[in-house]
Amino acid sequence: MKHKVILIAMMALTLPVWAQQPVDYVNPIIGTNGMGHTFPGACTPFGLVQLSPDTDTIPHNVNGAYQKNAYEYCAGYQYRDQTIVGFSHTHLSGTGHSDLGDILLMPAVGEVKLNPGRADHPGEGYRSRFTHATEKATPGYYEVMLDDYGIKAQLTATQRVGVHKYTFPKGKNGHLILDLVHGIYNYDGKVLWTNLRVENDTLLTGYRITNGWARTNYTYFAISLSRPIKEYGYKDKEKVLYNGFWRRFNMERNFPEISGRKVVAYFHFDTAEESELEVKVALSAVSTEGAIKNLRAETGGKSFDELAEAARNDWNSELDHFEIAGTPDQKAMFYTSLYHTMINPSVYMDVDGAYRGLDHNIHQAKGFTNYTIFSLWDTYRAEHPFLNLIKPERNADMVQSMIKHEQQSVHGMLPVWSLMGNENWCMSGYHAVSVLADAIAKGVVTNTDEALKAMVSTSTVPYYEGVADYMKLGYVPLDKSGTAASSTLEYAYDDWTIYQTALKAGQTDVAEAYRKRALNYRNVYDTSIGFARPRYSDGTFKKEFDVLQTYGEGFIEGNSWNFSFHVPHDVLGMIDLMGGEKTFIKKLDELFTMHLPEKYYEHNEDITEECLVGGYVHGNEPSHHVPYLYAWTSQPWKTQYWVRHILNRMYRNDINGLGGNDDCGQMSAWYLFSVMGFYPVCPGTDQYVLGAPYLPSLKLKLPNGNTLEIKAPGVSDQKCYVQSLTLNGKPYDKMYVTHDTILKGGVWEFKMSSSPNKRRGLTNEAKPYSLTKGILNK
Amino acid sequence: MKHKVILIAMMALTLPVWAQQPVDYVNPIIGTNGMGHTFPGACTPFGLVQLSPDTDTIPHNVNGAYQKNAYEYCAGYQYRDQTIVGFSHTHLSGTGHSDLGDILLMPAVGEVKLNPGRADHPGEGYRSRFTHATEKATPGYYEVMLDDYGIKAQLTATQRVGVHKYTFPKGKNGHLILDLVHGIYNYDGKVLWTNLRVENDTLLTGYRITNGWARTNYTYFAISLSRPIKEYGYKDKEKVLYNGFWRRFNMERNFPEISGRKVVAYFHFDTAEESELEVKVALSAVSTEGAIKNLRAETGGKSFDELAEAARNDWNSELDHFEIAGTPDQKAMFYTSLYHTMINPSVYMDVDGAYRGLDHNIHQAKGFTNYTIFSLWDTYRAEHPFLNLIKPERNADMVQSMIKHEQQSVHGMLPVWSLMGNENWCMSGYHAVSVLADAIAKGVVTNTDEALKAMVSTSTVPYYEGVADYMKLGYVPLDKSGTAASSTLEYAYDDWTIYQTALKAGQTDVAEAYRKRALNYRNVYDTSIGFARPRYSDGTFKKEFDVLQTYGEGFIEGNSWNFSFHVPHDVLGMIDLMGGEKTFIKKLDELFTMHLPEKYYEHNEDITEECLVGGYVHGNEPSHHVPYLYAWTSQPWKTQYWVRHILNRMYRNDINGLGGNDDCGQMSAWYLFSVMGFYPVCPGTDQYVLGAPYLPSLKLKLPNGNTLEIKAPGVSDQKCYVQSLTLNGKPYDKMYVTHDTILKGGVWEFKMSSSPNKRRGLTNEAKPYSLTKGILNK
Repeated sequence: MKHKVILIAMMALTLPVWAQQPVDYVNPIIGTNGMGHTFPGACTPFGLVQLSPDTDTIPHNVNGAYQKNAYEYCAGYQYRDQTIVGFSHTHLSGTGHSDLGDILLMPAVGEVKLNPGRADHPGEGYRSRFTHATEKATPGYYEVMLDDYGIKAQLTATQRVGVHKYTFPKGKNGHLILDLVHGIYNYDGKVLWTNLRVENDTLLTGYRITNGWARTNYTYFAISLSRPIKEYGYKDKEKVLYNGFWRRFNMERNFPEISGRKVVAYFHFDTAEESELEVKVALSAVSTEGAIKNLRAETGGKSFDELAEAARNDWNSELDHFEIAGTPDQKAMFYTSLYHTMINPSVYMDVDGAYRGLDHNIHQAKGFTNYTIFSLWDTYRAEHPFLNLIKPERNADMVQSMIKHEQQSVHGMLPVWSLMGNENWCMSGYHAVSVLADAIAKGVVTNTDEALKAMVSTSTVPYYEGVADYMKLGYVPLDKSGTAASSTLEYAYDDWTIYQTALKAGQTDVAEAYRKRALNYRNVYDTSIGFARPRYSDGTFKKEFDVLQTYGEGFIEGNSWNFSFHVPHDVLGMIDLMGGEKTFIKKLDELFTMHLPEKYYEHNEDITEECLVGGYVHGNEPSHHVPYLYAWTSQPWKTQYWVRHILNRMYRNDINGLGGNDDCGQMSAWYLFSVMGFYPVCPGTDQYVLGAPYLPSLKLKLPNGNTLEIKAPGVSDQKCYVQSLTLNGKPYDKMYVTHDTILKGGVWEFKMSSSPNKRRGLTNEAKPYSLTKGILNK
Repeated sequence: MKHKVILIAMMALTLPVWAQQPVDYVNPIIGTNGMGHTFPGACTPFGLVQLSPDTDTIPHNVNGAYQKNAYEYCAGYQYRDQTIVGFSHTHLSGTGHSDLGDILLMPAVGEVKLNPGRADHPGEGYRSRFTHATEKATPGYYEVMLDDYGIKAQLTATQRVGVHKYTFPKGKNGHLILDLVHGIYNYDGKVLWTNLRVENDTLLTGYRITNGWARTNYTYFAISLSRPIKEYGYKDKEKVLYNGFWRRFNMERNFPEISGRKVVAYFHFDTAEESELEVKVALSAVSTEGAIKNLRAETGGKSFDELAEAARNDWNSELDHFEIAGTPDQKAMFYTSLYHTMINPSVYMDVDGAYRGLDHNIHQAKGFTNYTIFSLWDTYRAEHPFLNLIKPERNADMVQSMIKHEQQSVHGMLPVWSLMGNENWCMSGYHAVSVLADAIAKGVVTNTDEALKAMVSTSTVPYYEGVADYMKLGYVPLDKSGTAASSTLEYAYDDWTIYQTALKAGQTDVAEAYRKRALNYRNVYDTSIGFARPRYSDGTFKKEFDVLQTYGEGFIEGNSWNFSFHVPHDVLGMIDLMGGEKTFIKKLDELFTMHLPEKYYEHNEDITEECLVGGYVHGNEPSHHVPYLYAWTSQPWKTQYWVRHILNRMYRNDINGLGGNDDCGQMSAWYLFSVMGFYPVCPGTDQYVLGAPYLPSLKLKLPNGNTLEIKAPGVSDQKCYVQSLTLNGKPYDKMYVTHDTILKGGVWEFKMSSSPNKRRGLTNEAKPYSLTKGILNK
């Protein structure tokens, strides 16, 4: 009787096998070759653990010299590789610089090897050859055959625990390598210290501290084994002075505790009879005690198969926001993009709420979940706005995590790039203010005063790149900063978001101060050429100046041609500075159609010809909003054409399918918004600029329970233009929609055609937000 | 009116200035030259902080080669030196190996120098010349003039805070060097990581992690400044890859956060007008948050002068156990010895009870104070018994700290040498069991079952030096361990303490097993020569064997001549093995009178001719109980002679006044017991073996409120023999007293004479405890 009840309950919880579920569309292999920098391994939505195979360990730095192809290994994996070094537990998704690869495990049989060996001589080390024929990757699950050993490896994960199942070849005793030296973007000296304790024959604990991109990264672990260790040992590849100096007993074999800089350990198991070994590796940034808590809470008593099913279910429920019509490739691309928006940011606290703060102290998260991995120069643009739309509770917690970061910061700054409780200062601007403002503008976050305080503090740190001068002169001067022009543009936009928030908080003095700062973009505009151009402290513009050159011209990851459009908060003001609407449209057109000579990108690892649409570089973020800028002009229909063109060119269901680093979901969020037909050009407003739907039909299940259906019957590469639009039956002629309009749900019906409707959206009222709206068209 | 009240209250609290207080007798300079390894700086009783000048920084190890004279700098200070490098916050008192010297501050004027410079070229670095004429050292206070700068430096301390007062020369602006690289027994790579935050212009926080004798030592700090920093900066002497790699702002000047391996920072102050700067440096092993708590709780709102007075009062009340008659030199030696018994062990937890455990996790001390620095091979002998007698509550907490250590140990072992939450495995045996047994025997500790569990676990760790073989064969074989004979002797005694505790706990099976193990000393006795001698696994003794040689003969820090007497728990059994009483007495006599050829100690840094009494080496602990062994013979009066001889030879009120390393109070506790006239030959019994009082009159204020008065009118080097003794008027003829007898207090009156009373103490009943008592004299 009892069994029957359970069976029925299980059936009710899972869909029939023949129905496709969201996870079935996801292809984690997309972007795993070349510059996508995604990884194929197992993780759960926003989890701390990303358990994935590393196919190489090219050090980032050898004798102080940068190693160029280390860059390819930002996520530890290149599809073209033929060997797997092992399975490590932390990976960044699609970043443009990297770190992590913590706590590597590798199962093996035969001779114990404590070095990974080289890719071209795999037999030298513990790494193994593999083929993609044996590889299977779905959300929360990864499987591969390690050919050198005949070991089947299966991986799954919970939020804080990586779970391994190894099936050893019949009749052979297996062993496990635990390499505490291995890491992504490694270099000699990156590992500051490691500790390992064999608590008993099925439990290991330990930690390592690294000095990587995360300057001081504490990774504690607890490893539970399904079978007892028979024998074990380790080698410390760098002798330390004190490791039991006075002792005359052998500490390298069956001695249950070791600390050192370069510890690689091995553990033997009796697998000749029963060939399966399950290994659960819990992480914590707090302590081994925290790791044990995480281990017990998330995996206690559960088998690999149960945990793999739970991970799959977890992804299914998190991904379950959309129903779309499309080709299999379109569905794969869509759901994989959705998947990629939910890997980072990552939960960064123990199950009991304890987490390591920016001050390296242990804090208790009260009333929120603490997150890390905020690649904000990228993600403020579309990733966080996307989360505001479909995961507002998570984004609210992310905002709260950022505010705590500011409160723990000795600089009083919100994160620039938060990585495992560290600030790595990567890229420019202080764009966390945009994330806070956007969440406030959309009602996702309500502690406006606390947020505003953090925003003001962040934007007034004098020693932060050029800010003292920016506050004095109204721009960052080129004699003080190599990114003078782009930083000025970025600060001006960021300041506008503070202005918006101050208005919301009713702090009019603050608002007025930041309204003025928001207009600072004007100070780096050379109206004589109609482009942004860096100035010196004395007010003069840089003389020799190449608007197509990214390096040495006062910009970062974007030339003046692209960056000059970076005034999302005051597009009309920018049009004015560029020489009026006609010139502006001409420049936009030219951006997408020009031929960019190779010399402008040949030294940039990120940019290849395939990443380009004319001079528009989709792989670098500063231009992500640019195709939508036509909305402010008399030719808004051009957005519809160029966005579809970019979607087709830059996103493919392929190992090389991403037109640049995914950047922690930013590229994917751009894709998802653009497929839906709208994009948050200016986060901090409640407006999304309209493009056109990419698919004939899309249903969005909103977090408030409403459903928005977006229909575009017959849409295609030919029929890419919006003839007309009705929202819930009523004609809609504006070039933007508000957040509230989306949340109301209902049906949006786009009538598509192969030629543009050049009369839509031309009135002032149809145009999206601009700080100086009305000035131009008065 | 109010002022008057305060004045009266103050007068009531402090003694008139003309009365000598205990602290006035203490001379912290004793033992600061040569091999005493004591330090002259400021600390409080059992405090975490020992703030003291370091006069050199000779690295322990250069390119893997041991640096011989590093050994002299175990406490960071040699009296003969002429320069001071700076003032660091942690020091070991009298150890025979070393570490620490954490968080060095040095005030200076003029050019900023970030290297210490060499002793023979002090101008090269920030160090300064000084003379002892300007030096003043009393308990809790140290003062010196830094001649190179004209800066007066004054130091005091609380338990967890080092307090500095610097008076800069008039009209000059001063600066402060914070050297996070500096350390005692340093070597390149010892500092694993450092972090520094300038929280505001009067508060710094940070930490460093070192790999020293304490394998992984976390020292967090919070530094409060009485005057605002004008400007600051740092140099990281070893480039690290990521320190804000992406940033183009100057992080080396006025940038409030830095991490690195070799950070030296400087801070400028405006002292031209007001010349005093007070600096409070709080330590914590938990976190910077913990350090700030410690800072506020212990020093909040208090001036240097107030804290210096509090430190003095603290010492006065802790030292206030004795009133003695004696010469000024005798009083200095006595009170300084007392002082030295109260420096280590040290409190190792924050004011809120949080502490870092042996598992590197943070624990909460519930109902006890957590201590570290247990130099147990030394201190089980007399230091802990001394604390049982005069500081039982502290010793009970130390025992509790050891039990927690065992519970946090992956080995399930009580500490061998506990150093800042680390086990450094220094020296042999597992003598913590003796400390537990002694505290239990004397009623200081009552959780006997918990203690016994920890003791049994400790003594059965098979991989601990030779224990597996010891348990199998009854001795540690020489083919397995270089200290086979001495370890066997030590384990046998230790096992006897477990036997005693098991009896107390009523666990008769355990008691019987350990009674047998306690007799294992017999297995390394070669009765054909009457000395302990190592055996091989096959049972044969080592063939070529030199009873005077310390190295290579199966012993450690003691030759067979000395170590053969190491059967404190079964002296009568030992006498039997040595060939009977007559031979035994002859051997004892010979030990104290022989000429030890120089070749036996010329390579031992610790031993010089001055340390020797015949072949007896007082500087190394294994023989400390030996002069008292006459009590088991028919010539107990010889103890009275030799103990006085050793007291006179080995303890002098002088920079070279200690006849060996003080060893965390062990040498001092030996002195204090011996001066009182009794000594705990066999900790774990409640008995003390009687010698003779050293001084004509001594009053001991017992912790239970009773007073014990020990009178020996006319005692002198001539009148050194006990003619008769009365306890509270009743004649007493035993050669031992019990703990309870002491605790009762009253008056002990020794009648001294210049010739021994050879009839006293000859009965079996007069003899102290022996495991096989009665066997010999039946």
